[in-house]
Amino acid sequence: MTKRIPVVEKIMSANDRVAAENRAHLDAACVYSLNFMASPGAGKTSLVERTIQGLQDRLRLAVINGDIATSLDADRADAAGAVKSVQINTGGNCHLDAIMLQDAMPQLTLGEIDLLIVENVGNLICPSNFQLGTHKSVLVASIPEGADKPYKYPGIYRGVDVLVINKIDLLPYVPFDMDYFRRGVEALNPGLETFALSCKTGEGVNAWLDWVANEVEAERQPSVW
Amino acid sequence: MTKRIPVVEKIMSANDRVAAENRAHLDAACVYSLNFMASPGAGKTSLVERTIQGLQDRLRLAVINGDIATSLDADRADAAGAVKSVQINTGGNCHLDAIMLQDAMPQLTLGEIDLLIVENVGNLICPSNFQLGTHKSVLVASIPEGADKPYKYPGIYRGVDVLVINKIDLLPYVPFDMDYFRRGVEALNPGLETFALSCKTGEGVNAWLDWVANEVEAERQPSVW
Repeated sequence: MTKRIPVVEKIMSANDRVAAENRAHLDAACVYSLNFMASPGAGKTSLVERTIQGLQDRLRLAVINGDIATSLDADRADAAGAVKSVQINTGGNCHLDAIMLQDAMPQLTLGEIDLLIVENVGNLICPSNFQLGTHKSVLVASIPEGADKPYKYPGIYRGVDVLVINKIDLLPYVPFDMDYFRRGVEALNPGLETFALSCKTGEGVNAWLDWVANEVEAERQPSVW
Repeated sequence: MTKRIPVVEKIMSANDRVAAENRAHLDAACVYSLNFMASPGAGKTSLVERTIQGLQDRLRLAVINGDIATSLDADRADAAGAVKSVQINTGGNCHLDAIMLQDAMPQLTLGEIDLLIVENVGNLICPSNFQLGTHKSVLVASIPEGADKPYKYPGIYRGVDVLVINKIDLLPYVPFDMDYFRRGVEALNPGLETFALSCKTGEGVNAWLDWVANEVEAERQPSVW
């Protein structure tokens, strides 16, 4: 019998080792980091823009964007006022991994930033299998995607630290059963920190910005232990 | 130097061989088949429902649904009036491949159907790399995803035979630059057959149904060559 699983295990443990190195690197520089994941078009880049615009008076923010092709998202982060944005073109690869992030990080001067947002490739499946070394992972869901997504993509809903429900301005125009959605999320990830907002209208964005600012502040405090 | 590419080539050629077997199997039974691909929530299942409801007086239709988890989509196809629906749970796999389709097909009685719709896993990246053996592939885009998707996911836009732009009822509520979208599509896939419609309101659905009915009819005609 051919034994194949160890090859996969080897890839994953190599990824996790590099993810731990990335985290140590960020921690040493007191840089807090978030990994944004979502399906294509849910609004990761719009949330990046809102976050930069809302926090640029308080924080220095950099962005690393992962995409199959183009630098459109990095250009938007630049225009919004990022201290620095770096585009990783994965060349067809369906997710970022820790090694891609490690390769991109030397393009940032970590001493000049407080918050690094890593915007993953638009995909509800593969990115959840690869730790990057960021402090927390954020799933951006969106109203027009439909309320059944936690049930159909349980892996990513189970694994994230924070959920942002974007495009709530479309609730009057799209059938979306919020109770059904919430029950699905709660079953997979009880008590998951959740922000419902609209990057288009700005509704609900302040609560998200306050959460991010508090997280960054907590990272800066030296542990009493 | 380690030579790794042949392993990938071997997987792909095995997939393509099985895809050719699937096609031969469908052709022998005069069953026309479509592979629906889209990002999560673009409306593949809603288009399946509209297609079944609109054509069930003319055609006998079966559906094979690929999903990470649940049988929600197969249940919806059943409720809409499919002759038969089969759910493939990929168990985390981000796409269907020809072997999964071959394994599922014995659950259908091909002599009893005219049209088979295969609904792929919601993902704009990985499914485009795996031929299934279906006659044509259909990409379902949707207005709230945004107009930049052809630029950011060129592989899937380049490889499909038909494009359906769903959720046009949301055009008044979402910024979507149709000219920019069209230019992106045209650069990757010139002259791509395109249907703009709303599965919610029914606008534009008839042109799509006529196209599907004509395709099935053409498959039934014996070639004069």
